[in-house]
Amino acid sequence: MKEEKSFVKEITPQAEDFSRWYIDTIKKADLMDYTPVRGCIVFKPDGYELWERIQEAMDKRFKETGHRNAYFPMLIPESFFQKEKEHVEGFNPELPWVTEAAGEKLEERLALRPTSETMIGHMYSQWIQSYRDLPVLINQWANVFRWEKRTMPFLRTSEFLWQEGHTAHATEEEARQETMQMLDVYSEVVEGLLAIPVWKGQKTPSERFAGAVDTYSIEAMMKDGKAVQAGTSHYLGENFARGFEIKYLDRDNQFKYVHTTSWGTSTRLIGAMIMVHGDDRGLALPPRIAPTQVVMIPVGPLKLREKVMEAFDPLFDQLKAAGVRVRADLREETPGWKFNEWEMRGVPIRLEIGPRDVENGQVILARRDTGEKITVALADAVSAVGKLLEEIQQNMYQRAVEFREAHSHYDIDSLEALKQHTEEAEKENRVAGWVLAGWCGDDGCEAKVKEETKFTSRNIPFHPPVQKESCICCGQKAAHTVWFGRAY
Amino acid sequence: MKEEKSFVKEITPQAEDFSRWYIDTIKKADLMDYTPVRGCIVFKPDGYELWERIQEAMDKRFKETGHRNAYFPMLIPESFFQKEKEHVEGFNPELPWVTEAAGEKLEERLALRPTSETMIGHMYSQWIQSYRDLPVLINQWANVFRWEKRTMPFLRTSEFLWQEGHTAHATEEEARQETMQMLDVYSEVVEGLLAIPVWKGQKTPSERFAGAVDTYSIEAMMKDGKAVQAGTSHYLGENFARGFEIKYLDRDNQFKYVHTTSWGTSTRLIGAMIMVHGDDRGLALPPRIAPTQVVMIPVGPLKLREKVMEAFDPLFDQLKAAGVRVRADLREETPGWKFNEWEMRGVPIRLEIGPRDVENGQVILARRDTGEKITVALADAVSAVGKLLEEIQQNMYQRAVEFREAHSHYDIDSLEALKQHTEEAEKENRVAGWVLAGWCGDDGCEAKVKEETKFTSRNIPFHPPVQKESCICCGQKAAHTVWFGRAY
Repeated sequence: MKEEKSFVKEITPQAEDFSRWYIDTIKKADLMDYTPVRGCIVFKPDGYELWERIQEAMDKRFKETGHRNAYFPMLIPESFFQKEKEHVEGFNPELPWVTEAAGEKLEERLALRPTSETMIGHMYSQWIQSYRDLPVLINQWANVFRWEKRTMPFLRTSEFLWQEGHTAHATEEEARQETMQMLDVYSEVVEGLLAIPVWKGQKTPSERFAGAVDTYSIEAMMKDGKAVQAGTSHYLGENFARGFEIKYLDRDNQFKYVHTTSWGTSTRLIGAMIMVHGDDRGLALPPRIAPTQVVMIPVGPLKLREKVMEAFDPLFDQLKAAGVRVRADLREETPGWKFNEWEMRGVPIRLEIGPRDVENGQVILARRDTGEKITVALADAVSAVGKLLEEIQQNMYQRAVEFREAHSHYDIDSLEALKQHTEEAEKENRVAGWVLAGWCGDDGCEAKVKEETKFTSRNIPFHPPVQKESCICCGQKAAHTVWFGRAY
Repeated sequence: MKEEKSFVKEITPQAEDFSRWYIDTIKKADLMDYTPVRGCIVFKPDGYELWERIQEAMDKRFKETGHRNAYFPMLIPESFFQKEKEHVEGFNPELPWVTEAAGEKLEERLALRPTSETMIGHMYSQWIQSYRDLPVLINQWANVFRWEKRTMPFLRTSEFLWQEGHTAHATEEEARQETMQMLDVYSEVVEGLLAIPVWKGQKTPSERFAGAVDTYSIEAMMKDGKAVQAGTSHYLGENFARGFEIKYLDRDNQFKYVHTTSWGTSTRLIGAMIMVHGDDRGLALPPRIAPTQVVMIPVGPLKLREKVMEAFDPLFDQLKAAGVRVRADLREETPGWKFNEWEMRGVPIRLEIGPRDVENGQVILARRDTGEKITVALADAVSAVGKLLEEIQQNMYQRAVEFREAHSHYDIDSLEALKQHTEEAEKENRVAGWVLAGWCGDDGCEAKVKEETKFTSRNIPFHPPVQKESCICCGQKAAHTVWFGRAY
């Protein structure tokens, strides 16, 4: 039997060093491992399973909204990148290149895709001839590569997994509707499944996707107050259509360029979920995504175990039959050791049964989110678990909303005030959070805010809690109300 | 309204040129497209959906047998390949290399994975310390690269999609059981879902996976008599464990090497399914994998359409509610045009309803596999469809078994006889098929058969229909009974 051990001692407290807390937690919970390839991680089974559940939820919604999956080549000829000027400038610095294959030097270098607008644009130009061929609504699940300097497991890795939707439409209106629809799908899944509240909004021009006319995002606040861009949806206008000659013959017998969109979410959602819900005891998983929703642990002296199991086993079967993802921990370790381990792994409910509980016809439910212990009648356990899982899901979302609200600032209206705010937060080791501020629309003001405070524009929320009147930087009339914050 | 058109005219007959038939069919049925990257195809939605169904069936069985999914880096350092001598020799000639990234030359070249034994072996050496850590049962769904000279859509492409299972065990016995178990899983899915009969057996040493102790395969016969290796399962012994130092401390306090296995199936299964079931009218999809199982087409004069739809719509809903993947074709094209199109796309059942049928309370079911038309009562249509789908699935499997049997030769016992057989088949444009023959076990004899007839050993079946006594090449005593055939 192993000694009782508290994982708390092995995980750096969030307040001490949030990044170390994050790394300690994901390593301890066995979600990932580093590899000898720079910036590339292994998604271990407990981490990959989170991705599988995200995929399942997203894929279902994509199909319900009329999309189909396909798969395009990962290798993209260098010349393809030249066809959209902003696109090549945006991605060129991050590309890995295949230059040799099967013992021979290639005539043209092939990039590992950072995103597939170019390859897919090329194919769409072959497939689309007539208005009858539109819209084209395709999604791809794939690995992508961005050779970045600073990496962080899940949030920013050289290779990551994602989905990228690419659609082509006859009109701007329809393409813009698609762009918005997919942003809605993203926020539904991220809020509903991952219990992460997000702000939907538009990116400022300087933060736009390379080659897009308009970029929209959902933005989430982590427990250190930093932002994660949790999904983006782009209206690409005719930019890629012109670059790749994607034209169709319209009803009026005119050749016209299509309007394209693209939209993506990635394995960084795993990282965001961890940073939104985790605490000093480790992971905390929202019930809807948790691979194990309930862990059942028998307690009390071993000599009375047999009696306990007479109640334990049927309850396990009933929970399973009710569709609960339940797991029984019958290992030889002490209950205390097991409690700590499953807390660290983020399982939403721990269900304890001991000899006394059997006598009294009851079980104990311990909530991961609040630490609360509830006694329920054995006969009602299945329905109580079902209700509690839903309650925990809602509570985790609500707490994330409250945390975000507590660290959103609406009264910081000058660069000086923002500098003072961030400096004080740093000195006092407080979360600086986000600032909702006015912005005149000038790139220079945005750049100055970034330079002096490391706060970048997150997005221009569609429904800001308040409208701001003047630019946080120059004090001129605000054209937009913008969320500013530090970002991953 | 488009003219009636017969796709038959646009698809080369199988007997005329099987390869051209194959390409015509997969292009016409919109399963794939070529790309500007050598040997890389697009898996278009209708092709990719077939892969999604294969994935779903395989993944379910992998999980039922205790495996979990993970994801490992695609880029593999060159030095990793050097650690298993046979492995590097086997794969080196086919590797594409990343040599530059983010504007800088890399210190060490990185290969695009052709398979992941090396990367996974490296990680397992970190993860496995004690007998308590075993077995490790992991599968990965991923893209892989083999830069081959001759390519063929689905069957052999530079980039393809696959799953690769990688397991580590304490003992040889357990690892060998795993190897066999996964071969069984493959044959169950390939026979059950894809209606492709396979021979399970062992590969000869010359056809072994690079680095394996023993390789087992399932082999399927295409309609041109050629073979497709539809899945492989390898017992890797301690080869990779020694190369990557994957050792564990056993109960007896000794450090020991683990025994590893790997096993894979890929998107080539799509190609195999097409070549086993397709005919001169195009695709023919087994009901269990068909994205659309039933296509409903209203027939008769347009002015009576409204009346037809009164029966059509409720039946559509009933079929859908019964879990049938049904599609209604209400386009303006003529019924004849639609019939041809859905036949070409391989939909197992066409359901026709016209005004007369409504009057008589009946519908027509047309089978794709036999061309037969059956009249059933409207009231019984749902259950009739369910039964017929199952019957078609069985019939397609049975016909494939019969085709294979009709083109399996048991009485060709010398190289001369085999040469004569293949020459005659070629002259008369007949399918040469496979030959079950004795083999003495000498690599030279196997090589000579290949050189003179292009027949390669497919596998040594576990349960050969007959046991052969003498080697087809040298006439000496046979050590094994082997399937020989030409292969993709």
